[in-house]
Amino acid sequence: MRNLTLLTDLYQLTMMQGYLRCGKQDEMAVFDVFFRHIDDFSEYAVVAGLEQAVEYIRDIHFGPEELDYIRNLHIFDEDFLEYLKNFRFEGDIDAMPEGTICFPGEPLVRVKAKLPQAQLIETALLNIVNHQTLIATKASRVVYAAQNTAVMEFGLRRAQGPDAGLYGARAAIIGGCDSTSNVLAGQMFDVAVKGTHAHSWVMSFPSELEAFRAYADVFPDGCMLLVDTYDALKSGMPNAIKVFNELRAKGHEPVGIRIDSGDLAYLSKQARRMMDEAGFPNTIVCASGDLDEELIWDLRAQGAAIDIWGVGTKMITSKNNPALGGVYKLSALEENGQLVPKIKISESQWKITNPGVKQVWRLYDADGMATADLVTLEDEVIDESRPLTIFDPVETWKRMTLTDFTARPLLQPVLRKGEVVCDLPPLNEIKKYAKKEMATLWEEYKRLKNPHIFKVDLSDKLYALKQELLSRGG
Amino acid sequence: MRNLTLLTDLYQLTMMQGYLRCGKQDEMAVFDVFFRHIDDFSEYAVVAGLEQAVEYIRDIHFGPEELDYIRNLHIFDEDFLEYLKNFRFEGDIDAMPEGTICFPGEPLVRVKAKLPQAQLIETALLNIVNHQTLIATKASRVVYAAQNTAVMEFGLRRAQGPDAGLYGARAAIIGGCDSTSNVLAGQMFDVAVKGTHAHSWVMSFPSELEAFRAYADVFPDGCMLLVDTYDALKSGMPNAIKVFNELRAKGHEPVGIRIDSGDLAYLSKQARRMMDEAGFPNTIVCASGDLDEELIWDLRAQGAAIDIWGVGTKMITSKNNPALGGVYKLSALEENGQLVPKIKISESQWKITNPGVKQVWRLYDADGMATADLVTLEDEVIDESRPLTIFDPVETWKRMTLTDFTARPLLQPVLRKGEVVCDLPPLNEIKKYAKKEMATLWEEYKRLKNPHIFKVDLSDKLYALKQELLSRGG
Repeated sequence: MRNLTLLTDLYQLTMMQGYLRCGKQDEMAVFDVFFRHIDDFSEYAVVAGLEQAVEYIRDIHFGPEELDYIRNLHIFDEDFLEYLKNFRFEGDIDAMPEGTICFPGEPLVRVKAKLPQAQLIETALLNIVNHQTLIATKASRVVYAAQNTAVMEFGLRRAQGPDAGLYGARAAIIGGCDSTSNVLAGQMFDVAVKGTHAHSWVMSFPSELEAFRAYADVFPDGCMLLVDTYDALKSGMPNAIKVFNELRAKGHEPVGIRIDSGDLAYLSKQARRMMDEAGFPNTIVCASGDLDEELIWDLRAQGAAIDIWGVGTKMITSKNNPALGGVYKLSALEENGQLVPKIKISESQWKITNPGVKQVWRLYDADGMATADLVTLEDEVIDESRPLTIFDPVETWKRMTLTDFTARPLLQPVLRKGEVVCDLPPLNEIKKYAKKEMATLWEEYKRLKNPHIFKVDLSDKLYALKQELLSRGG
Repeated sequence: MRNLTLLTDLYQLTMMQGYLRCGKQDEMAVFDVFFRHIDDFSEYAVVAGLEQAVEYIRDIHFGPEELDYIRNLHIFDEDFLEYLKNFRFEGDIDAMPEGTICFPGEPLVRVKAKLPQAQLIETALLNIVNHQTLIATKASRVVYAAQNTAVMEFGLRRAQGPDAGLYGARAAIIGGCDSTSNVLAGQMFDVAVKGTHAHSWVMSFPSELEAFRAYADVFPDGCMLLVDTYDALKSGMPNAIKVFNELRAKGHEPVGIRIDSGDLAYLSKQARRMMDEAGFPNTIVCASGDLDEELIWDLRAQGAAIDIWGVGTKMITSKNNPALGGVYKLSALEENGQLVPKIKISESQWKITNPGVKQVWRLYDADGMATADLVTLEDEVIDESRPLTIFDPVETWKRMTLTDFTARPLLQPVLRKGEVVCDLPPLNEIKKYAKKEMATLWEEYKRLKNPHIFKVDLSDKLYALKQELLSRGG
């Protein structure tokens, strides 16, 4: 395992030395990870990356190489190096479990730790959670567009480096993809891997027919042929059908064909018709080539005869929005032994933070559908037996009273004094949980264009605290 | 070190088993890595990632865990597993050195190896080279926009996972950035690391003034203060200047201030004026906050008083185009002991590949400026003593005759029979070389909007070969 301890911004180290020198190293601080909005992208996000963030945090240690490097920067003193030598993260972390749907403004990870400890982990925590949450969210949109057809993750060659391919594949599975082409991701996360052959296979034989025949000989029970190396309808499909007939004569049923270029709506319908007419109605058509949720939605609306989608570049990089702007903001700080709520004031309403140690509650109606989220202070309890009136924190006259509802706290204990206190479930369980989460969300929040805005309100107590801090200027 | 051997698409393994079964495992093949175009992005690319690609290729080995995993997929036979057990890459690779400027359509890496060996490395090679070349190119545009002011790479928290942060920082340095905030990248690549403090530092003290004072006490000779936690001009700047005066009274000179939000043009000019008037004309103004090349260009055009740029999200993810579409295409294949040129024909002119084993020559004028590139067959030699007529490969009537020119072959030997035969220079040398490369390119090719298109022509011999293969249909 690589030592990622130094995977941080230099200013975290300079601030840590500063806190030490000022005697602030034992002050407790609370930070929230949240994103403010997802530009033109999605109304919701699918939380992912917690397991890797926890692995990183548990493994933090400054060994001789790290200490030597820091010493040689000539901006740190020996007291600080001694402090780093014994450093480990001893704080508490609460987080939404991976696969949870979350909304703008809500803390999805809450860190409560001594100030320098909370500071050190900021950068890598954001890096990991921002990335995987971004890709899980993108994938969930792609999977939504594909409705009941399967999506394969195909993006490794265009991902932003090895980790982006590996953890991107992991996140894509959380978002709802069925499989990946990435073998190492398959091994690491116990995910189905898929793939047959490329254009180069066809080109390495004297003819397409010989290439198909050779492939069918080697994989008689997994015969999926890529038909668009030369001409999909004039050459690829007739050759594929010839080989399918030969396969069947030997007692094997073909799997189907893949089309990687051209007019996927037209080609898929023609390919389907040709295979049906040739007596192969159970074969499948796989499409790939620069797909994303918009194109898949559009192809489905055109009645394209596509059963499986291979999605690469645009999902693994979240091409239309390749960064989730998750931030890490101080919400409380110890003063004289007490945690005091802190607020970051800004001229932009949406940049003002919510102060205090908080919890996020999801409120469900009697059918189990998500109605609204309520951000409260940590010690608040929601009484499900009584009507609950919630209101918009900006347009406060917008009120709604809930009766016959249930409330679920989304932030769950993950670390206590640096020790893991929760299950970190295997990927297939996270995927199942994420699917259940998506099912509690009305279509109107999930649609690709102009989704309905989900209510994220503040409790009376949190709202009052925020107003009080705002009126005192922080 | 992680074993990245399985960092590949499953279809590479299925094709490899297919080649084995068909007795094609010793056929030599040549593949080119190239990109067809960089959508709306840049006319040129800065090659990067070769060192990591070579590390990956040299380390390929299937250990017991890899073999067990592959066996348990139940699609591979024991002969193939035995083959993998002894697998190593024994081929030849030629590539443009890191930092070289390259253009659409040119092979930047050329792989000549036995078919299954060439196939296995495709995915990771593309992953690594696509990513780093993308970020180096993006960074070179940002650095171009900043002209003679310095650019710091600040993007780790928004990068697509740890590798994207680490190798993205490496690539950004190749593209011309001066430093990074990423401590681990600093350690791994011997790059300058920079950073001072965040808003949370200021918020953790009872007042901004106390926070600044504390920071100046800890780092009297590296005092760069972030002034926009509350109000940059009304609070941050007056407090900073107060602390700068106190510092000077103790015999230290302040470094400057950083502004991370708001109207950077206006705020930087006001901050500059305030520091000048207070007697600190040698301090610097650093700006950060969602910057990219367009914004930096625009801020400079407005006369913003910014000396250093901290560039994060939009550079580390190449936000406007987060994937370089580098492909890996077969250009020659052994038949009866001879390498036979191969072409991939497409209905789209720009998707047709260039056949054969090729070299790329850069042609320079008498002043050392790049005039055009000429793609030739490997065995062609360019005679600099005679006039050279080149022509556009599509609009063939567009001709140009060069006299008094020099020609440099860009593809250089990297691996021979799997062994490294070139220097893999340290990052600072690559950076210097990339800077020299950029200096040979006219401004017209580098400008951000509507750059002039650089000529990439084919030699007579290659052009004739291509036409011949096209007319025979491949």
